[in-house]
Amino acid sequence: MLSLRPRVVIIGAGFAGVRAARELANSNAEILLIDQNNYHTFIPLLYQVATAFISPEAIAYPIRRLLRRIPNAHFLMARAKGIDFSAKLVQTDSIGIFYDYLIVATGSQTQFLGVEGAPQYALSLRTLEDAVAIRNHILSCFERAAYVTEESQRRQLLTFVIVGGGPTGVELAGALIELIKQPLARDYPLIDPRQARVILLHSGERLLGKLPEHLGNYTCRQLRRRGVRVHLQTRVSSVTPTAVELEDGNVIATSTVIWTAGVEANIPTDTAKLPTAKKNKIVVESTLQLPKQPHVYVVGDVAFVEQNGKPLIGVAPEALQQGTAVAQNIKRQLQGRSPKPFEYFNKGRAAIIARNAGVAYLFGKMSFTGFFAWLLWLGIHLYYLPGWSNRWTVLASWIRDYFTRERTIRQIFPAQTSILTNSNDLERQQVKFDS
Amino acid sequence: MLSLRPRVVIIGAGFAGVRAARELANSNAEILLIDQNNYHTFIPLLYQVATAFISPEAIAYPIRRLLRRIPNAHFLMARAKGIDFSAKLVQTDSIGIFYDYLIVATGSQTQFLGVEGAPQYALSLRTLEDAVAIRNHILSCFERAAYVTEESQRRQLLTFVIVGGGPTGVELAGALIELIKQPLARDYPLIDPRQARVILLHSGERLLGKLPEHLGNYTCRQLRRRGVRVHLQTRVSSVTPTAVELEDGNVIATSTVIWTAGVEANIPTDTAKLPTAKKNKIVVESTLQLPKQPHVYVVGDVAFVEQNGKPLIGVAPEALQQGTAVAQNIKRQLQGRSPKPFEYFNKGRAAIIARNAGVAYLFGKMSFTGFFAWLLWLGIHLYYLPGWSNRWTVLASWIRDYFTRERTIRQIFPAQTSILTNSNDLERQQVKFDS
Repeated sequence: MLSLRPRVVIIGAGFAGVRAARELANSNAEILLIDQNNYHTFIPLLYQVATAFISPEAIAYPIRRLLRRIPNAHFLMARAKGIDFSAKLVQTDSIGIFYDYLIVATGSQTQFLGVEGAPQYALSLRTLEDAVAIRNHILSCFERAAYVTEESQRRQLLTFVIVGGGPTGVELAGALIELIKQPLARDYPLIDPRQARVILLHSGERLLGKLPEHLGNYTCRQLRRRGVRVHLQTRVSSVTPTAVELEDGNVIATSTVIWTAGVEANIPTDTAKLPTAKKNKIVVESTLQLPKQPHVYVVGDVAFVEQNGKPLIGVAPEALQQGTAVAQNIKRQLQGRSPKPFEYFNKGRAAIIARNAGVAYLFGKMSFTGFFAWLLWLGIHLYYLPGWSNRWTVLASWIRDYFTRERTIRQIFPAQTSILTNSNDLERQQVKFDS
Repeated sequence: MLSLRPRVVIIGAGFAGVRAARELANSNAEILLIDQNNYHTFIPLLYQVATAFISPEAIAYPIRRLLRRIPNAHFLMARAKGIDFSAKLVQTDSIGIFYDYLIVATGSQTQFLGVEGAPQYALSLRTLEDAVAIRNHILSCFERAAYVTEESQRRQLLTFVIVGGGPTGVELAGALIELIKQPLARDYPLIDPRQARVILLHSGERLLGKLPEHLGNYTCRQLRRRGVRVHLQTRVSSVTPTAVELEDGNVIATSTVIWTAGVEANIPTDTAKLPTAKKNKIVVESTLQLPKQPHVYVVGDVAFVEQNGKPLIGVAPEALQQGTAVAQNIKRQLQGRSPKPFEYFNKGRAAIIARNAGVAYLFGKMSFTGFFAWLLWLGIHLYYLPGWSNRWTVLASWIRDYFTRERTIRQIFPAQTSILTNSNDLERQQVKFDS
């Protein structure tokens, strides 16, 4: 299949990459989408996979199925290792790919902010595998707590620490406390549910720092009312397999530290050093082109984009709008016209806290809390989730959970992703089961 | 929770173990079920997970949820390592458990019949993890075949060899050819679907040797009509990462060998040597008690049980009936009565071949082929699948697949269970994508 049409290579099948591929469907370019996974991950619902709400498959849409509707698009499952801008070549772990236009949409990765032990011992929540690993780990902690006899070990196993009070930390804390108080309390009759604690550590003065103050305060009250111990202005100094140490000297014994506090751009490693701004994001022109590389666009979490003097924060709507914008710009270039600057239209932001409680801030002026914001969040995410069958699966899980307070996907599976299984942080003992 | 009630320990939460626990619900014993997984696997549908029909969670029922309805039952997630009959102690990888009565229901594992290379390079289908590994591997082969340029490599990647013509081999072959001819053909427009081959190797003279001859012949015709290459009276002499060698000297280049040809009993390793019969199965009394151990029962695939001079073959109904029988026998012993011999009531056997085609042999005399047998198989398995929500999920997948010829669960996930990902059996090349 030798083609003389210009080739647009897109690295990364996240929100920006997939949107760009779709928008280029009616162009005369040949599109090649590269991703290390053969599915697109719907990241906003990862926390629900991590807390046993929904199955991982429900938020992982097969990329080839998505591309069936785009006749000029192909897919390559590979990990991009580097970009050679002078040769116009993307190097992957399998084959090398030449491009005429390139869209770098490689997203972000967890940044542990230099905290000692965090890269080794804290769990992060960026990929589907991370989410399943967290689910497996939480359930493994309960399984082990069911038979340990020493009170301090049981307490350590049942203490879940979440670092970071942004949307991911808040959503995870709310979903986790509900998982523990209802379905797990029923599953483990020998464990006193009051022994299980969810602790949310946040360095800032209030939760959800990017939203107006009263929404952060509402979120904090809601989480506390539901049993989450929220500690504001608290920084972590180190993480070990059995504890998290705080900068104020306090130590929390825990087998579980989930890190949601920092992200940075994920740039293929063998790429020539590019000018970057904070969070290692690549500095781009207002058109999202790489400076001096008119055929290379950088979008989504990997791009440093400012609007009205403020950097964009790295949420899905930004990535989607940027995906559309670069597709339009490439089409303009293909027609011999010059690309246009990108402008982000911020419809608003929402975060979910727990059952019947959410916060939303719309069009830069209207704010909502409680049931309406909760319903709005669910509706928006259901709308954006790709695939009708996934929507039905997720909606059915939500409805079932709402009425039965049950979580169905609580298999520890696959077993090897539980970091607890082979760890030696708890001594194995020989005791009678009920002694 | 010190209890003075007699304790029944059940090792293994398969069909026999779970059934026994349920039947002991209304006894005055305390039940402890031990399994290395926190879920019960519905093994008859594993092949559908392996061929991207249904999600693994749909056939993995959380054991603690199952036990909620049994107030006198507890669960321990642990791997049984050995049994000390004199101390009445089960040793696990976490704690040791004393028993008053013991039910050994540890099932079976793959037996590679001494074929060189098979344990290292052949995939087996006994656990949920095996099933997901097969799915990931098949899809990885297609992903790689989409970009390799050498014809022989592509052919090797697209050749899928199944060893063993029993129900598992037949069901897998039928489901795999349908997966390849329809959904994957649409997903990989650059791969010629005629290049993909499914080869079923069977040592016997006919498929499904345990069923009447005409059913085996019908199965063979149906599979061949649908494109499976069935080779009867063909034995494998060795397996390598890139080929399977036959006893007749022929060599089939393939990256995928799925082994369904042999099983043997899975006995905890540190157990005193017990008298065993073929397939390493433990010889038991007619009551399913271990000889000289009146408080120890052995059931399911791990027990050697004969009926009318013929050994039972190791199917789910046998395990279920044995689970009931040992529960009744333990209840009799608790009441000071003596246990009764087990008698298997064989309602029949069924196997599914592919869309609209199955075989069934009922009550030792009636045989059916085609649509009715197919529907019967689906109905029986839906009935026995635990959990209403799982039934709905599976039924919905089947209906969707039937009308759309689509398979939705085709994510390569988790990525690390694809044995292809890090293998070096294919050289990595740097080529232009469409050269």
